[in-house]
Amino acid sequence: MSSSIHFPPLVLAYSGGLDTSCILVWLKEEGYDVITYLANIGQVEDFDAAKKKAESLGAKKVFIEDLRAEFVEEFIWPSVQASAIYEDRYLLGTSVARPCIARRQIQIARQEGAQYVSHGATGKGNDQIRFELTCYALYPEIIAPWRIPEFYNRFVGRKDLMEYAEKHGIPVPVTPKAPWSMDANLMHISYESGILENPKSHAPADLYLMTKSPEDAPNSPDVLEIEFKKGVPIKVTHVKEGKSKDTPLDIFSYLNEMGGRHGVGRIDIVENRFIGMKSRGIYETPGGTILYHAHLDIETFTMDREVRRIKQGLGVKFAEMLYNGFWYSPECEFLSVFKGQVYILGRESPKSLYNEELVSMDVQGDYDPCDASGFIKINAVRLREHHRLQGEHHSKH
Amino acid sequence: MSSSIHFPPLVLAYSGGLDTSCILVWLKEEGYDVITYLANIGQVEDFDAAKKKAESLGAKKVFIEDLRAEFVEEFIWPSVQASAIYEDRYLLGTSVARPCIARRQIQIARQEGAQYVSHGATGKGNDQIRFELTCYALYPEIIAPWRIPEFYNRFVGRKDLMEYAEKHGIPVPVTPKAPWSMDANLMHISYESGILENPKSHAPADLYLMTKSPEDAPNSPDVLEIEFKKGVPIKVTHVKEGKSKDTPLDIFSYLNEMGGRHGVGRIDIVENRFIGMKSRGIYETPGGTILYHAHLDIETFTMDREVRRIKQGLGVKFAEMLYNGFWYSPECEFLSVFKGQVYILGRESPKSLYNEELVSMDVQGDYDPCDASGFIKINAVRLREHHRLQGEHHSKH
Amino acid sequence: MSSSIHFPPLVLAYSGGLDTSCILVWLKEEGYDVITYLANIGQVEDFDAAKKKAESLGAKKVFIEDLRAEFVEEFIWPSVQASAIYEDRYLLGTSVARPCIARRQIQIARQEGAQYVSHGATGKGNDQIRFELTCYALYPEIIAPWRIPEFYNRFVGRKDLMEYAEKHGIPVPVTPKAPWSMDANLMHISYESGILENPKSHAPADLYLMTKSPEDAPNSPDVLEIEFKKGVPIKVTHVKEGKSKDTPLDIFSYLNEMGGRHGVGRIDIVENRFIGMKSRGIYETPGGTILYHAHLDIETFTMDREVRRIKQGLGVKFAEMLYNGFWYSPECEFLSVFKGQVYILGRESPKSLYNEELVSMDVQGDYDPCDASGFIKINAVRLREHHRLQGEHHSKH
Amino acid sequence: MSSSIHFPPLVLAYSGGLDTSCILVWLKEEGYDVITYLANIGQVEDFDAAKKKAESLGAKKVFIEDLRAEFVEEFIWPSVQASAIYEDRYLLGTSVARPCIARRQIQIARQEGAQYVSHGATGKGNDQIRFELTCYALYPEIIAPWRIPEFYNRFVGRKDLMEYAEKHGIPVPVTPKAPWSMDANLMHISYESGILENPKSHAPADLYLMTKSPEDAPNSPDVLEIEFKKGVPIKVTHVKEGKSKDTPLDIFSYLNEMGGRHGVGRIDIVENRFIGMKSRGIYETPGGTILYHAHLDIETFTMDREVRRIKQGLGVKFAEMLYNGFWYSPECEFLSVFKGQVYILGRESPKSLYNEELVSMDVQGDYDPCDASGFIKINAVRLREHHRLQGEHHSKH
Repeated sequence: MSSSIHFPPLVLAYSGGLDTSCILVWLKEEGYDVITYLANIGQVEDFDAAKKKAESLGAKKVFIEDLRAEFVEEFIWPSVQASAIYEDRYLLGTSVARPCIARRQIQIARQEGAQYVSHGATGKGNDQIRFELTCYALYPEIIAPWRIPEFYNRFVGRKDLMEYAEKHGIPVPVTPKAPWSMDANLMHISYESGILENPKSHAPADLYLMTKSPEDAPNSPDVLEIEFKKGVPIKVTHVKEGKSKDTPLDIFSYLNEMGGRHGVGRIDIVENRFIGMKSRGIYETPGGTILYHAHLDIETFTMDREVRRIKQGLGVKFAEMLYNGFWYSPECEFLSVFKGQVYILGRESPKSLYNEELVSMDVQGDYDPCDASGFIKINAVRLREHHRLQGEHHSKH
Repeated sequence: MSSSIHFPPLVLAYSGGLDTSCILVWLKEEGYDVITYLANIGQVEDFDAAKKKAESLGAKKVFIEDLRAEFVEEFIWPSVQASAIYEDRYLLGTSVARPCIARRQIQIARQEGAQYVSHGATGKGNDQIRFELTCYALYPEIIAPWRIPEFYNRFVGRKDLMEYAEKHGIPVPVTPKAPWSMDANLMHISYESGILENPKSHAPADLYLMTKSPEDAPNSPDVLEIEFKKGVPIKVTHVKEGKSKDTPLDIFSYLNEMGGRHGVGRIDIVENRFIGMKSRGIYETPGGTILYHAHLDIETFTMDREVRRIKQGLGVKFAEMLYNGFWYSPECEFLSVFKGQVYILGRESPKSLYNEELVSMDVQGDYDPCDASGFIKINAVRLREHHRLQGEHHSKH
Repeated sequence: MSSSIHFPPLVLAYSGGLDTSCILVWLKEEGYDVITYLANIGQVEDFDAAKKKAESLGAKKVFIEDLRAEFVEEFIWPSVQASAIYEDRYLLGTSVARPCIARRQIQIARQEGAQYVSHGATGKGNDQIRFELTCYALYPEIIAPWRIPEFYNRFVGRKDLMEYAEKHGIPVPVTPKAPWSMDANLMHISYESGILENPKSHAPADLYLMTKSPEDAPNSPDVLEIEFKKGVPIKVTHVKEGKSKDTPLDIFSYLNEMGGRHGVGRIDIVENRFIGMKSRGIYETPGGTILYHAHLDIETFTMDREVRRIKQGLGVKFAEMLYNGFWYSPECEFLSVFKGQVYILGRESPKSLYNEELVSMDVQGDYDPCDASGFIKINAVRLREHHRLQGEHHSKH
Repeated sequence: MSSSIHFPPLVLAYSGGLDTSCILVWLKEEGYDVITYLANIGQVEDFDAAKKKAESLGAKKVFIEDLRAEFVEEFIWPSVQASAIYEDRYLLGTSVARPCIARRQIQIARQEGAQYVSHGATGKGNDQIRFELTCYALYPEIIAPWRIPEFYNRFVGRKDLMEYAEKHGIPVPVTPKAPWSMDANLMHISYESGILENPKSHAPADLYLMTKSPEDAPNSPDVLEIEFKKGVPIKVTHVKEGKSKDTPLDIFSYLNEMGGRHGVGRIDIVENRFIGMKSRGIYETPGGTILYHAHLDIETFTMDREVRRIKQGLGVKFAEMLYNGFWYSPECEFLSVFKGQVYILGRESPKSLYNEELVSMDVQGDYDPCDASGFIKINAVRLREHHRLQGEHHSKH
């Protein structure tokens, strides 16, 4: 006689690390049929080892997905177009990766008939939100162990995870854990928590993995030429070496290499999480930083002043939405309409609104200096009225 | 029998250069009694020589005014508080200087009973507007020779100025003019026009006067500690050398020195003038750049997220107003109300909204992870509704 | 020997109705020592009866607090100053009342040494949020029965409440419940839920309690003169009758009476709740509507154009914050700084920025029509450049 | 032997009134070959008489153009989509008409080979700007007599125009001029200047031509059903009478009739002109007012909350641009991209984001009340932190 118990299938975003390995086993204990999924979005990782590990821990199926090209084209490029930057400094490297990872996870869940998706993000961070808002926008059921009391009360500290791992045959990392946590992808590496939580403590010099220290950077510059179309790079050329790249992934990887060599794109900031608290983060975003500045330059050069001003305001909003996890939202869809529209001129012609003759101080061009008098005087009408009344007002006293 | 002709007195913003020297003489020809006024706002200048030159050219009276301290305190500091930056890059070094200069000129005009003020700004630039909007806000009559046809038709090129100078005994500069124009003050030096008008031409390496080339900068960093109060620096300390400065002028000058030594604050941009055209400008703003970043840091650290967000939007507006010359305007007055208000916490206590325990990934603190589930689900209500309808909509096809 | 059990004291916002009466008894069952608190913010209510009812149900102490004057002065007036309107139509009558009510409840809790506060707001509405964000901003512990599973699973429908009431000697209302819910205060009455949830169903004619139907309104107008100072009314006069009111409460009550008589201020809208869903609400806000329009008028008349524009944007934000329950928040504090600042001119002088001679089409005044040519041409520089490039671009095809 | 003098052709926007008749003759005196152009945009006018008058005064050619349909479809409809409203009250009836009129004038100028266009707008108003910015965006040369000193110094008052008219055989109006000026089109009639310049003087009761006084309006309502698609009306039905209209021009005209009958859409305001001064205007916009409110309603009903919020901000900007004359500008093109995008749901399905079950207070639906607790607590994190610090701060004193 055999009892047929239904184990509901679940897709777990699996990193291969201690946390998600414990979660994998714990979910099995809870009665789920666990499919693991690991996205390759450019982080340095032994994907084969992770695969084997998941299998050995009882994963029903293991997916390793190379999302690097779509990450660049569908997530990084739109952020570049939008000049997306959070609180004036953070280029959103983690924020844009989450919806990319979650989208595929949901595709797998659909394909595998899994009702649940799960992840190992903690309960105080932004990533749980970014992950889950994507899920809720596209698909229903999420299991977040770090917010389930049975789970988080059992695993209060790392020691508990270690004990659990030993008990359940989960391979325990041999090298000691770095005293901070790290999130790496093609766009950036972020470092936070642990000893970094104290905003006064300096980041150790050996923390950075993507960029050289500016002091160690070569003294001679590498001059790059970046060609844009509709606000995204279509080619990068190393002027001296004559080398060039022209697929999104190649372009971005090459900019990472070049930026990394020169120590470009390190920031160490305190930021405001969606969840309401301030947190300290260290980021290195070499290629993204180069593109942010190059795009800003091309944009100011080709775009009408007032259009740019409106776009700037919308970009701030877009960055907030991205940071908060609303990539798949009506408002982000709405804002996206803009992004292709504004480079019309640059799109098919090598022209900008820059007009050398018009701007020249030496050449009159099609400009009559007398017009400026009227312009100024009319602009001053309000000011003079204000002054007139203030004057009357002040002279009373 | 003597005829008594009235020569109306006029205060001319005089730089000592060829242009304003010619204007001085021309205004006298036109029948004005010219008082010259030269503001020391930190530019490198032989003020004595300028004074003698003005006298020798027939100035009725000569004013040399040291405005450096008030420039820092009343104009640079508010810009720092507001994180004022134009089109994401330009720190407004010239824009904040104009109202400072014009304000004193009007004071002199009042004191001397002069009905007119005059300046040598050209008819295509921003400075004429900044200067004149200040004047119109505070005082009425302006004479702008570069917009008067009799003047600009007579002086079409530099050659005409030179000829006029020779004819009227105006000392002609012996060194050849730089092939660009330059505006220097304590906050920055800007370079534009001439050979720089072509945005493709690179700036010559010897153009920069305030900052060393980053390549020539020392390899060892100078670590500075900057203390802020209400959003403005009140003390800067060189950590290793133990040296410190604590008056606004000293602080800013010292930051210029340090920034200059390390090649901080160079930008080469195209910007949108108020007058409607795009123009290329090169700027070096060493101290201002350091303060911009330090202030951004302190602000994000001490200010509530939503307050900062509102302030950010207002700051963009404030920077536009400043760039366009509306320092003395109802809207800038209005926006100024804000600036002191937002640092309440930082003001009297050494505390920030940063709460290490709250943010810690290792410590629960006063935070229940379960709350995040509700937070996320409620935030997703809209998204799911949107998806529901889109789904129904899509499934129809 | 007696055992001394501690019953923690709790302050319950009590309305006298069926819901909060059941909550009162249920909280007692749960072991709390219940103090009831009922705020008089202008609703029509038998406060004595409510007091007796609470006492008979075992309330340890009963507070009936007349908050009408502070409601007008400290909550309605700032909304008038800010022209606060949510989604272009809703004047926020409930939103401004919540923090007023909650503030006093917390004062009572402090004074009575109660650790908990409780309310009867439902789990899908805005009011729970407005109430609790105020509490969290000022004080810690909240008990919201309608979000506690033991409570809401027990009281699924009105029938359950009725049964519970009968069982516990809670007087049951004799008149049948209106098929909608209603929230009344000095500023407005709102009607929602029940049969009103279907946005297509018309509101029954006898629903409205504060305003006459426009059809039944008198044909002859009542002309009122409202005097403002710093953006708030200080006097209202009935021109024909010569009657006038000059305390905030009297002014507002009188405007309610006048507006009500003429059917002013009814709206029937769908709005977006903070909680993410759309809901239908019907509101009547007679006095508030009059003041909204009168203030808009005085504001446009006395305020500089650009200042008004900035204030308009901030007002939209302020209204959102209010609607969402953030009255006691850093951002609302921040925005409040503005409100007194902008009426400087109107404040002490009977003058506006309106200048009849300047604006007159018949009188030249201090205005030179030629200036407009320059103004227009300079404003057109961008447009012509845009056209020039588009032209070149188009002519290519 | 004949001398061949070239009279440059010019297209004059001609109204048939005294002003433009004098301008017509004056321009001929100045040596132009005048083509007159009169647009029918729905004003009440004897177009035949105007034609004959222009011919009799020596117009080389006379164009009477019926632009009513394109005015509604291409200018009024986009304003409705954008909920365009200036300074919270003015529906921009004149502002949207100007670019419509000017566009055709330029087409005629091109077709007739005329180098110049001219108009009779005064030098202090908004219309000169709206007219000329359209021209500059599309075409180069404008002659604005009211800003030419030879013209405006000759015609200082109406008396001068009358004398000139008599001398040159221009028919003089027999009825006395109304003591204000008026601008009428399909969308509205505006009244300003003259006795209306004093903002305290009431508008005479007989001023209004498009709308009945509310007092004289019928007591029984006319109930209309308006069907929208992509944010513009496609059908209006009188529910009781069963009558319906479905072309843009018919729809709008019918709404004007209905609105006019019930006294809908009168405002009497002070507004801020682009030129910097405040002016008083009285407007009646019956159909436009109905559509503004109906569209607002449909928009809030069908649009996501955050999308609407972004659109609201852009709409304010759009209205400003329109008011200031920038219809043909890069920024208005840019903003226009939005307008079609946001009604996706409403477009092809009869559904809205309104979900009766979700919102119902009586039905749980797909909503867990407990989630609200987390939502509120997380939203309160910031507030509690703020309070914590303020508390520490306050308790120090």
